Amino acid sequence: MKYGIVAFPSKKLQDLANTYRKRYDPHYAKITPHMTLKDTFEADEMQIEEISKKLTEIANRFAPLAIHASRVSSFFPTTNAIYFRVEPTPQLEDIHKEIQEQLNIGTPKHVFVPHITIAQKMTDSEHDDIFGQLRMIGVDEKESIDRIHLLYQLEDGSWTTYETFRLSGVE
Amino acid sequence: MKYGIVAFPSKKLQDLANTYRKRYDPHYAKITPHMTLKDTFEADEMQIEEISKKLTEIANRFAPLAIHASRVSSFFPTTNAIYFRVEPTPQLEDIHKEIQEQLNIGTPKHVFVPHITIAQKMTDSEHDDIFGQLRMIGVDEKESIDRIHLLYQLEDGSWTTYETFRLSGVE
Repeated sequence: MKYGIVAFPSKKLQDLANTYRKRYDPHYAKITPHMTLKDTFEADEMQIEEISKKLTEIANRFAPLAIHASRVSSFFPTTNAIYFRVEPTPQLEDIHKEIQEQLNIGTPKHVFVPHITIAQKMTDSEHDDIFGQLRMIGVDEKESIDRIHLLYQLEDGSWTTYETFRLSGVE
Repeated sequence: MKYGIVAFPSKKLQDLANTYRKRYDPHYAKITPHMTLKDTFEADEMQIEEISKKLTEIANRFAPLAIHASRVSSFFPTTNAIYFRVEPTPQLEDIHKEIQEQLNIGTPKHVFVPHITIAQKMTDSEHDDIFGQLRMIGVDEKESIDRIHLLYQLEDGSWTTYETFRLSGVE
């Protein structure tokens, strides 16, 4: 089964992201707006129990994630995905690194750039047009995310939550 | 904010439900296939913390839910929703009653009929046609669901998981 680990921002920030996603992101209906902490990986039932235990330990050490969605950026030319940039912090770097090292399943596909995708899979000219508009509108939201989610993917590409983990530590 | 409480069946049963839902259920993209344990209700942040505690207690008492999706039924003429009937059991009745009584928010809109919706909001003639087909195909899946989910709804109608609760008791 395919799994992934994400943090969902507040309803307010999810609603804001969805105003763009419903028009510009073909994954809109597959998952609600999120910040990915670990990309899709394969695991069987025994592995996922082990992973669940490790995530419980990690969540018990980390405090709620202080995030600042500070501007609209793009991964162009790597991909033409447009996103709310979440300012990197030592805390975000640390939890990402901990998840990666503790789970020890697959190497990250990319350098960790905390973000919430709002548009993707456009043509280059659509990307330029939409990015120009959204960059001007921008975003500026600060908040705290007090839990992370382990999700699994159905055959149609949609994601269901397997388990939530409350961030109840101090790091 | 609007909340609801559901149990998600296995990936296998969700995938099966989605083969119908993608064609016949306009809510297909808003939530993955589920069995509702408590209909949509309003709660604020303080209330939801209290509710979360109560659900933790309930989940600590109940064993994983043994379910049997036994046939395709319809709520017609009340509504024209078609669903996988989940056989009522004392365990399902009890957890539904406990959630209702402990949370004490709103009276249930309907008598509790455990089910997984696979088609809804069709015209009457569509309903008759599709129900005729799906009833013939039927369903027969037995499984165990070891957790329940507290969800919240975004402005676009989609649902995000707020918290999961493992059923770790013996009832």
